[in-house]
Amino acid sequence: MESNNETVKIIPLGGLEQIGMNITAIEHGDDIIIIDGGLAFPDEDMLGVDLVIPDITYLKNNKDKIRGMVVTHGHEDHIGAIPYIEKEINIPIYTTKLTMALIEYKLDMHGLTDCVRRKVVSYGQIINLGCFRIEFIRTNHSIADSCALALYTPAGIIVHTGDFKVDYTPVFGGVIDLQRFGELGKKGVLALMADSTNVERPGYTPSEKNVGRTFDHIFDDNRNHRLIIATFASNVDRVQQIINSAYKYGRKCIVEGRSMVNVINIASELGYIKIPDNTLIGIDEAKNYPDEKLVYITTGSQGENMAALSRIAASIHHKISIVPGDVVIFSSSPIPGNEKSVYRVMNELEQKGAKVIYHDTHVSGHACQEELKLIYALTKPKYAIPVHGEYRHLKRHSELAVEMGLKKENVKILTCGDVLEIGGDKFDIVSKVVCGGVFVDGLGVGDVGNIVIRDRQHLSENGLMVVVVTLERGSNQILSGPDIVSRGFVYVREAEMLIEQCKDIAAEAVVRCTSREDVDWNRIKNCIKEDLGEFLWERTKRSPMILPIISEV
Amino acid sequence: MESNNETVKIIPLGGLEQIGMNITAIEHGDDIIIIDGGLAFPDEDMLGVDLVIPDITYLKNNKDKIRGMVVTHGHEDHIGAIPYIEKEINIPIYTTKLTMALIEYKLDMHGLTDCVRRKVVSYGQIINLGCFRIEFIRTNHSIADSCALALYTPAGIIVHTGDFKVDYTPVFGGVIDLQRFGELGKKGVLALMADSTNVERPGYTPSEKNVGRTFDHIFDDNRNHRLIIATFASNVDRVQQIINSAYKYGRKCIVEGRSMVNVINIASELGYIKIPDNTLIGIDEAKNYPDEKLVYITTGSQGENMAALSRIAASIHHKISIVPGDVVIFSSSPIPGNEKSVYRVMNELEQKGAKVIYHDTHVSGHACQEELKLIYALTKPKYAIPVHGEYRHLKRHSELAVEMGLKKENVKILTCGDVLEIGGDKFDIVSKVVCGGVFVDGLGVGDVGNIVIRDRQHLSENGLMVVVVTLERGSNQILSGPDIVSRGFVYVREAEMLIEQCKDIAAEAVVRCTSREDVDWNRIKNCIKEDLGEFLWERTKRSPMILPIISEV
Repeated sequence: MESNNETVKIIPLGGLEQIGMNITAIEHGDDIIIIDGGLAFPDEDMLGVDLVIPDITYLKNNKDKIRGMVVTHGHEDHIGAIPYIEKEINIPIYTTKLTMALIEYKLDMHGLTDCVRRKVVSYGQIINLGCFRIEFIRTNHSIADSCALALYTPAGIIVHTGDFKVDYTPVFGGVIDLQRFGELGKKGVLALMADSTNVERPGYTPSEKNVGRTFDHIFDDNRNHRLIIATFASNVDRVQQIINSAYKYGRKCIVEGRSMVNVINIASELGYIKIPDNTLIGIDEAKNYPDEKLVYITTGSQGENMAALSRIAASIHHKISIVPGDVVIFSSSPIPGNEKSVYRVMNELEQKGAKVIYHDTHVSGHACQEELKLIYALTKPKYAIPVHGEYRHLKRHSELAVEMGLKKENVKILTCGDVLEIGGDKFDIVSKVVCGGVFVDGLGVGDVGNIVIRDRQHLSENGLMVVVVTLERGSNQILSGPDIVSRGFVYVREAEMLIEQCKDIAAEAVVRCTSREDVDWNRIKNCIKEDLGEFLWERTKRSPMILPIISEV
Repeated sequence: MESNNETVKIIPLGGLEQIGMNITAIEHGDDIIIIDGGLAFPDEDMLGVDLVIPDITYLKNNKDKIRGMVVTHGHEDHIGAIPYIEKEINIPIYTTKLTMALIEYKLDMHGLTDCVRRKVVSYGQIINLGCFRIEFIRTNHSIADSCALALYTPAGIIVHTGDFKVDYTPVFGGVIDLQRFGELGKKGVLALMADSTNVERPGYTPSEKNVGRTFDHIFDDNRNHRLIIATFASNVDRVQQIINSAYKYGRKCIVEGRSMVNVINIASELGYIKIPDNTLIGIDEAKNYPDEKLVYITTGSQGENMAALSRIAASIHHKISIVPGDVVIFSSSPIPGNEKSVYRVMNELEQKGAKVIYHDTHVSGHACQEELKLIYALTKPKYAIPVHGEYRHLKRHSELAVEMGLKKENVKILTCGDVLEIGGDKFDIVSKVVCGGVFVDGLGVGDVGNIVIRDRQHLSENGLMVVVVTLERGSNQILSGPDIVSRGFVYVREAEMLIEQCKDIAAEAVVRCTSREDVDWNRIKNCIKEDLGEFLWERTKRSPMILPIISEV
């Protein structure tokens, strides 16, 4: 396949710096295609930020070249930024049925349904976008309809696995199309871009079906208790298995949590989930059944503050309260960073008398070492570009690729904005484009940046002290103030003396600065800040934000 | 032993609500003894708080009864609050040698060394405090000189394990005194208070010596590279094993990080760590040796922002920079809540070319299930009060106690402030005392409370908008303003229009409220808050803190 000197460019516009923000451009001549359009959830130091979406300046500047976006699966970190991207560059989307339905739900919420061209593709189907042909290949993952991509480019075949695992006994649909990976390998694969999430784990990720067996045991062991099972809304197969166990053990299911309800509606309309008649009931019908005939399926398995399970645990859910004997199952692992929140919810539930189960109730959706090796053995790529993971994962993945026979110099870790030129013997980062994360806060996109975040951090640590003084125009005599208002600094009642001293210090600073000939308000403000800052640090070892405000009448 | 009707009271003043704040009062008649005086580190929602110390109102109110404090070991969650406690109630301290030295270091920093009576005790020694006799029993843990306590009370023997594990091949000192636990069991143990941290883990915690063997392998495998090993400063045995491997493989050790230097100095002065001559060198001597002859021992294994390893990873350490080929070992597990910070440091190190090792390089200091069962089998307590752990751990521990033959009603989980009366057939929570966490922020103890924290949270999420207006006394005409200053809300340059609109809205609110007869400043402020709040939410879906300030001239 790669019997020529053509090259293509691979440009990640998210990824490493913003874990989760999966979006990659592939470029040749006048054609660009985009793989996925994901968002990242804010780190804890991005105070007040709701979402992080990719900076697509590069795409905007090359709008005319873009032939479309192909999407591997329907998780937020692969589709969440699509509405924001579509608002900037209106491009057609190609993906599988369930994934498209989840994207459409998002577009609808942003009022974009009618503006975006969309085409649903099936496994095995090939589409043409400019000089590229793209084939969608069946994989397994923790959401149905996931796919890998074979990109037939002028420089050769690039295989992108998306997020994947090998599940020989999947709950829905078939086994990952390993034969096709093998066929492609025989043709000759230029480069493999594979999922690194679980590269540190030896062996194989267990089948989703294992969780179903655990559910059966739990249903069997707890015939006299109400069951509440929390899992990821998007894990349709997991929900299917809960419903299967419920049906088998004669329980009614109640679905709770907005995203859970949405996904189940979409999945069941499209036939990705099969719900036996009379198994699903509304939350208000629950009172017609004894507790031991019910199972609740809820969101909140990550300890998210406002999700159903957290509200149940905190006794602020309107319709569900824990009673001693309830059995709560976390069918999930904490995503790094969520551990403390998850444990807090578990503790709250146990304190209210629930039994919490969280061992063997989850399997990962990502390939472990042996599965990755299998994909390398089937595709035999010349080059490897590890994707999906933190740097330490990409590094381990690089080592695994070398173990699998690739030359060390043929494996590269890309960071956001790197332009990799690949083809023939060329495999170099040739330039860098603008890229990074854009903060979404409320309705604002990009209007909260580093300065705002830095101020929020300062305020969050130390609070603030506003100093207001009114001067007489011309004479610069103090007419009123200095008045002091503080928030988040100290209990004001206990610090009356301190606040009085602050007023004196501010007044002295104003007088000192206004007694000069050339009165400069910035100078006055700086004097107040410095004098007060020094005084407060000495007295309290704290540095509140000091905000002097001068008015003139 | 318990052939009487006497009872004692057990009162945890920390623990469950503030994990880590270990402090328990034991009371009988006119005598109180205190076990440990620990602090907690703030949760992430306790913005700007440095430490959390126990509310000891109950102890202050019963100051005259207190006979002393006995301390089980030298970790922060058992000794960190001692200086703050001593400032309020000056009481004598009894503990083992290394633990006392660590406490003295703290007292010294607070200028309290001369005011606190202290007595060093040895394993096996018994002291008398009022009606109580207290025996110090050797245990194993991740810090040397840890002990369990046998409290001989008028109601019978209470055994408190402290934090412990069973290490048959400890690095320093002897094996936990299992014989003595057995002897006490034969005499008859009224109650066991045992460590619950690892109760969810089956089997046994491996010996500390295992880590030494891993170190040897790592030193052997990486003969051509510089080594940097991060671990807990207080884990003296771990440091000893690093030094042993360094000596064996002909490397010089450099100790970096203030707390690491302190602990090693104290431990080596007291003979708890043995450093062969010429093995330890100063950081400035490092340049005289090739990289492969050096090993750095540093703090920062939890990803703490200002610790040595984090500064090295972020390239802001003055004397150590990572070069490709460096091998960095995390000899620790992330404490829940620290995962993301630890991974961030690992990623930074790998991105600079270091190899990061963190598998098999740590063992826990806490007992797993089989070790706990062993202690139950030896002591055969009538009652059990699980300690040290989150609620879910205490719950599992209760189940384990019942498995070990205790009656279900003889096992109780106490929360902070519960007064448990125990003795004979009595085992009831009879009352509740004031207790909780007191926030330390800078020099302030207790002057930052829930209102201040709530303000900090509000500011951190949404920033603030200060609205200043000057009115004419009497006429209430606006003389100046409304002026608006915002911080942490939005890039002001991009929001000039919005800010102008805010000024108009504030002005309208002022005019509306001052046109009435009875002008009330609070009403004006509320009008500004409401009108602006509504406008900003509608326009931005954000709720900055709005701070109206009115002055009058």
